[in-house]
Amino acid sequence: MSKFIVIEGLEGAGKSSAVGYVTDYLAAHGIKRVECTREPGGTPLAERMRAIVKEVHEERLTIEAELLLMYASRVQLVETRIKPALADGVWVVGDRHDLSSQAYQGGGRGIDAKLIGAIKQAVLGDFKPDLTLYLDIDPAIGLQRARHRGELDRIELEQLGFFVRTRTRYLELAAQDDSIKVIDAGKTPAEVKAAIESALGHYLASEPSCIPG
Amino acid sequence: MSKFIVIEGLEGAGKSSAVGYVTDYLAAHGIKRVECTREPGGTPLAERMRAIVKEVHEERLTIEAELLLMYASRVQLVETRIKPALADGVWVVGDRHDLSSQAYQGGGRGIDAKLIGAIKQAVLGDFKPDLTLYLDIDPAIGLQRARHRGELDRIELEQLGFFVRTRTRYLELAAQDDSIKVIDAGKTPAEVKAAIESALGHYLASEPSCIPG
Repeated sequence: MSKFIVIEGLEGAGKSSAVGYVTDYLAAHGIKRVECTREPGGTPLAERMRAIVKEVHEERLTIEAELLLMYASRVQLVETRIKPALADGVWVVGDRHDLSSQAYQGGGRGIDAKLIGAIKQAVLGDFKPDLTLYLDIDPAIGLQRARHRGELDRIELEQLGFFVRTRTRYLELAAQDDSIKVIDAGKTPAEVKAAIESALGHYLASEPSCIPG
Repeated sequence: MSKFIVIEGLEGAGKSSAVGYVTDYLAAHGIKRVECTREPGGTPLAERMRAIVKEVHEERLTIEAELLLMYASRVQLVETRIKPALADGVWVVGDRHDLSSQAYQGGGRGIDAKLIGAIKQAVLGDFKPDLTLYLDIDPAIGLQRARHRGELDRIELEQLGFFVRTRTRYLELAAQDDSIKVIDAGKTPAEVKAAIESALGHYLASEPSCIPG
């Protein structure tokens, strides 16, 4: 049975590289029908919602509108791409998913977690990733890496305190959910890759029906 | 004290004309600082959300994403334009507001009213119009009028049954809320104008502090 694996983490944590490690690992284990998604975005309409959230505007985007756009984008992606792929036996590797809203909008922006939970339950129900790899990084280091990459988007331009609160929430949520594995993203690329492969190996071993005979 | 007055109704009910009748009536009664808004939309960012909802796309927009975009647009408009205007003593006349989501997404699309209520409460709290004028029209007549206007948008392209369910929900909601007045929009323009002015006259008489001395 196909699975939904999500990479989470702050800016500069190395999510893009991690997506590559995951798809390579799956391919090496005979899992070749894999789709990659990103959030917010991932469909033409959801990408238009992403642009509203990410671009730097003269108009202040309210935190409530930001939250609702994140969920509008997410439900659009889940219903039109992720669920159909999974139903078709295709694995999905996501660059961010719901945990991002809980960490960024909940922890970073300070929106009540119950309110976020109510919206999530209303539009996504019990749908959730099978495995989440959270790449944990010191926000100061992550931001330094992100800044080296070039122009920062509206969210990346937040102050350090925002990312400190976001990371704290990520870690709290990971501690409460066995399907979220914390990867120390402050280590060398080779060490991070090995940690991701180890987490994937444990997961696949626990789900033997996943691996093509 | 300034007030928030909303015009509601199906396509072709005559909302644009009604907005004009209201602003003219207010001006004639000494209320000259009036802003007009429309939903979805009404700010540059909210208009981008409106475009996603209204344009005809190849990709199917899910009903949940549509609902969340409506609320994202609404909270953006309320927080950045409507509340600041009211706080500044400016009256606001809205072409659609929350009742539209309850009628179209609730009645028309069949989304659970409790779910919509939960999202509304989460992002808007107890904020609501002081007076709503609901222009009631037979959907077949309204659609015929709308089609004469030209190109139909994604929502206007729905089948008649959708608008019948939407109208039914409008009438149910109006029956439960004294601040919603039903105007028979099937009558002649002069009769509709008179009915709107009568409803406004009653409202202003009940709120004497509204009218400039």
